[in-house]
Amino acid sequence: MSRLDLFVDRMVSQRACLNYGAALVSALEGPAFELGLGNGRTYSHMREIMPERDIYVFERSPAAHPDSTPPEDRLILGNVDETLPEALARFGDSIVLIHADLGGHNPEKNDAFARLVSPLVEPLLARRGLMISSDRMYFDDLREIDIPPDAVPGRCFIYQRA
Amino acid sequence: MSRLDLFVDRMVSQRACLNYGAALVSALEGPAFELGLGNGRTYSHMREIMPERDIYVFERSPAAHPDSTPPEDRLILGNVDETLPEALARFGDSIVLIHADLGGHNPEKNDAFARLVSPLVEPLLARRGLMISSDRMYFDDLREIDIPPDAVPGRCFIYQRA
Repeated sequence: MSRLDLFVDRMVSQRACLNYGAALVSALEGPAFELGLGNGRTYSHMREIMPERDIYVFERSPAAHPDSTPPEDRLILGNVDETLPEALARFGDSIVLIHADLGGHNPEKNDAFARLVSPLVEPLLARRGLMISSDRMYFDDLREIDIPPDAVPGRCFIYQRA
Repeated sequence: MSRLDLFVDRMVSQRACLNYGAALVSALEGPAFELGLGNGRTYSHMREIMPERDIYVFERSPAAHPDSTPPEDRLILGNVDETLPEALARFGDSIVLIHADLGGHNPEKNDAFARLVSPLVEPLLARRGLMISSDRMYFDDLREIDIPPDAVPGRCFIYQRA
C-alpha cells in the first residue's frame, strides 16, 4: 500500500463515518464539534450533511480555505487541553457529535494526542452522542460501534455514549 | 457536493488514472516525471506501481514526508518554466509518463498554470507516452484518451502521444 492508498482510505472512511454518524444523531438536539480545522474540507462536509446544526470548530491557528472558515462565533481558538475543559463548562454534556482527524504523519504522536484528548472529549457527549475519529481513542464509558460498510476498518472509529 | 467530496473524487481518480497509465506504458522504456512533490503521497504511489522505472520529481521547494522524498539525483529543483526546457535538452522525447496535480484551490490559477506547462511538457513525451493530470491541459499533438471506469470524469485527464 502506498501512502496515497492509505490517504484515500482515510478520506473515504472519514466521509463514510461522518455521513453515517450524522444520520444516527439526526433526531438528537445539540451542537457538533470539529477538533482541528486544517484545510476546512471536513468542516465543509459537516456543514453540508448537518445544515441545521451548530458546528463549533476548535483550532490553534486557523488557515483554512476562505469558503470553509467558520463564522467567528463558531470558532474556538486555542489549545484543546484548555479549550475543551472550557467547552465543558459552557456546553455541559450536550454535544451530539464530535469529529477529530488528528491526522499527523507520526502514529506515535497521534496516539499520544488521542490519549490526551479522550478524557477531555468524553464528558462533553450527550446520551447517544458520537465521537468519530481517524485514530483509536481511549474512553472509559463510551462503546465502540460498527463503522459503516463503505468505511475501511482501522481507518475510522466511532464511539457512542450509552 | 462538499469540498471533501470533491477532494475524495480527485484523489480516487488520480490513483485510478496512474494505475491505468502505468499499465498502458509498462512495455515502454524511459523515465517518468512527477511535476510537484507536495506531501509526496503521489510520488510514493508512483514508485510502488512503477518500481523499475526512474522517476524524476520537479519541485521548487521540497517539503515532503521523509519516506517520500526522492534521492538527490532524482530531484530537479527550480521553477518548471526553467527546469522543463532544461529537461528537454537532457532527456529529449524519452519520457513515458508525466503526472501533474496542479491542485490549487483556485481554478483560474490552475488553468493558467496548465496553459503555461502544456507546451513545455508536450515535446518531452515518447511515442505512446502519457500525460496524466488533475486539470485539463492544452496540447497541440496529444490526444485525450478515455479515463478508466473507476475514475470520475472531470477529476482526471489522460493525454497520449500518437
